[in-house]
Amino acid sequence: MALTRSYAEALDHADPLAEYRDRFVIEDKDLIYLDGNSLGMLPLVSRDRVRQVLEDDWGRHLIRSWEDRWLDLPTRTGDLIAECALGAGPGETIVADSTTVALYKAVSAALDARPGRQAVVIERDNFPTDRYVVESLARQRGLEIRWVDEAGPNGVELEALQSALDESVAVAVLSHVDYRSAALLDMRRYTQATHDVGALCVWDLCHSVGVVPIDLTGDGVDVAVGCTYKYLNGGPGAPAFTYVRGDLQVQLHQPIWGWWGRASMFDMEQGYQAQTDMRAWLSGTPGLLSLCAVEPSVAMIAEATVVAIRQKSLSLTALAVELYDEVLAPVGYGLGTSRHPERRGSHVTLTHPDAQAITRELIGRGIIPDFRRPSGIRVGLSPLTTRFVDVYDAFTQMAVLPDPAGPDDRRTGAAGPRTS
Amino acid sequence: MALTRSYAEALDHADPLAEYRDRFVIEDKDLIYLDGNSLGMLPLVSRDRVRQVLEDDWGRHLIRSWEDRWLDLPTRTGDLIAECALGAGPGETIVADSTTVALYKAVSAALDARPGRQAVVIERDNFPTDRYVVESLARQRGLEIRWVDEAGPNGVELEALQSALDESVAVAVLSHVDYRSAALLDMRRYTQATHDVGALCVWDLCHSVGVVPIDLTGDGVDVAVGCTYKYLNGGPGAPAFTYVRGDLQVQLHQPIWGWWGRASMFDMEQGYQAQTDMRAWLSGTPGLLSLCAVEPSVAMIAEATVVAIRQKSLSLTALAVELYDEVLAPVGYGLGTSRHPERRGSHVTLTHPDAQAITRELIGRGIIPDFRRPSGIRVGLSPLTTRFVDVYDAFTQMAVLPDPAGPDDRRTGAAGPRTS
Repeated sequence: MALTRSYAEALDHADPLAEYRDRFVIEDKDLIYLDGNSLGMLPLVSRDRVRQVLEDDWGRHLIRSWEDRWLDLPTRTGDLIAECALGAGPGETIVADSTTVALYKAVSAALDARPGRQAVVIERDNFPTDRYVVESLARQRGLEIRWVDEAGPNGVELEALQSALDESVAVAVLSHVDYRSAALLDMRRYTQATHDVGALCVWDLCHSVGVVPIDLTGDGVDVAVGCTYKYLNGGPGAPAFTYVRGDLQVQLHQPIWGWWGRASMFDMEQGYQAQTDMRAWLSGTPGLLSLCAVEPSVAMIAEATVVAIRQKSLSLTALAVELYDEVLAPVGYGLGTSRHPERRGSHVTLTHPDAQAITRELIGRGIIPDFRRPSGIRVGLSPLTTRFVDVYDAFTQMAVLPDPAGPDDRRTGAAGPRTS
Repeated sequence: MALTRSYAEALDHADPLAEYRDRFVIEDKDLIYLDGNSLGMLPLVSRDRVRQVLEDDWGRHLIRSWEDRWLDLPTRTGDLIAECALGAGPGETIVADSTTVALYKAVSAALDARPGRQAVVIERDNFPTDRYVVESLARQRGLEIRWVDEAGPNGVELEALQSALDESVAVAVLSHVDYRSAALLDMRRYTQATHDVGALCVWDLCHSVGVVPIDLTGDGVDVAVGCTYKYLNGGPGAPAFTYVRGDLQVQLHQPIWGWWGRASMFDMEQGYQAQTDMRAWLSGTPGLLSLCAVEPSVAMIAEATVVAIRQKSLSLTALAVELYDEVLAPVGYGLGTSRHPERRGSHVTLTHPDAQAITRELIGRGIIPDFRRPSGIRVGLSPLTTRFVDVYDAFTQMAVLPDPAGPDDRRTGAAGPRTS
């Protein structure tokens, strides 16, 4: 079938998740939002929950809300994410702190659990915060960092990881889905490779949670961290989740001791004694207005199911690759994402020497992808809000943009003068 | 003048800040809220700002809000707090992370700046999170903790601090106002004492910021952390502020490296290089819905001025002490807060063997203080929302409560059977 707009419309018509889009705040009907992998849209239920927490909980019920309504929110929200999106059991996940702080705690705890081992393994193309967290801990502890290079759109190959691993490695830090290429790693095999040398593996699930089925228990994962503001639609800067496998909780101890992690916190007694469950991973008072938006949104994802979301995601990314071949490759774009559906997450990265100027031009036209240096236009396809016609319209517009770099350069793909 | 309700009403009538109460959400007109030192009430401007950020920024403007509206919020809000409440200059304060995480970063950085010194000094009665943070860092680094005991309602005496200080001390961690007794320390003299031995001083300003005038620059303070959800009315779990004196910023480096602290963060380049200004203290993406409520509330405090707020606070705590003497001391309560106005913050702690049961009974009657083990009833007097009649009504009710412990025990102050 030809790649016409009618074809995209037909896909939308047949989409069993199409109705979910009506459950989000969409003020600007013409906006084509392709950045749900960076900041997910606002679900109506989350808007209502934040209003209620703001006005009824804080405004009216005041301090009493901590005991009556809020105190278990970090564990309750964690359990909900675990059940519907992580393949994990209750009591293994909490929601608190920024992703960076959560990663710091996770990697620090994993390093402590492998004393005497002097190396940390991480992908060179891992998200900056993952790299910087590892750099800070390596510097504090005098550890060696072993950088693993990616092979291309499929991400780090298993063999490349294995060749960096030996019995001096304490921890490997891997991203399940790469933030630029969307490369999706095989969690079970990569985890097993780290276990084969006695190391622990910390997974960053930021770009996969809620859109790729995850089976932390089945895959034998040790520790995982992920953010809630992308496909989980938790809101700007919503707190991260941290998973620690149940049987590892007696071995892994996070480094930032605060009153929320202490047994009998309101006794405020002398001497830190950690909670004996996953609450030991809490440190300070969580930002409630940010935290409270996560639960209702995740409940909606639980209803839709991650399996159905993945199904639509695969169709969306497949359409994007087909459109790339038909309309973008001929005019000088490249494809930075794998052609193998099982090796990609839910975004597609196009490359172009003038990616930054093109992104700026698209945003001016009400089409919102994001730019990733040096040459990536990242197109996020968030199945509960992205329509097939959005992909069609965006890609066909990209194909006929006035050349941002000059009259001749863009269509040939030659690098014109950069605007930045 | 006799301590009648008319007297309290006259004080309210003469109060130049009285009108500010109308600028808060007060749904329950009969509630006597004496816990603004734990969770400040919701300002109308903050309610409106959160709604706007929720619905217009997140809901409509989406990812574009980061660049257009949100990116400078941690520094902008920090500068505003610095100017109106800290006596600090621009570029010395950020708002991000929980108070616990902010303290961890601050104490860690201070320890790094005094290598070779093996001791940390902290008050035994400091807030739990301050103690636990020091315990975690001491354990990580093999440091000695020197606990300083408080002498009573006036807090740690200068001489007690000095006797714990010597040239093996790297850092002292002190609370400006004690969370239980409200003891207010002389920031300049205590800081000077730590400097006299070459140590750094980290101040916890949680219970003083916004209600006690602070002059960080004039007092030569090194580092300070405080929370925004008490007298600053920033909302439940709103992020903390961190102050680092300008000239110390080249010496003090926080340990949790993330993308928000890196120079040119959106370049996402290899190798962490800290920002060269106070943004170096940022780690991960801040929880925006929590952060955004702080700025409008602090702007209101700037308008009222901390000097005027302190003036009313002194009158409120003076009335509380007078009422204590007249109606509570005779029926078995004790006073856990200093009688010297210059040595107390803005709450008053009453002691009673049945404090927990009394607190529960008061809450049932719509009077909200909080209970602090083992025997404290903490009465927070937040000048923008607490009226003189609130103090009068609460104290006179406390005087005539049915005895929670039994018919004979309470009025004599004898310890009856405990309910917990």
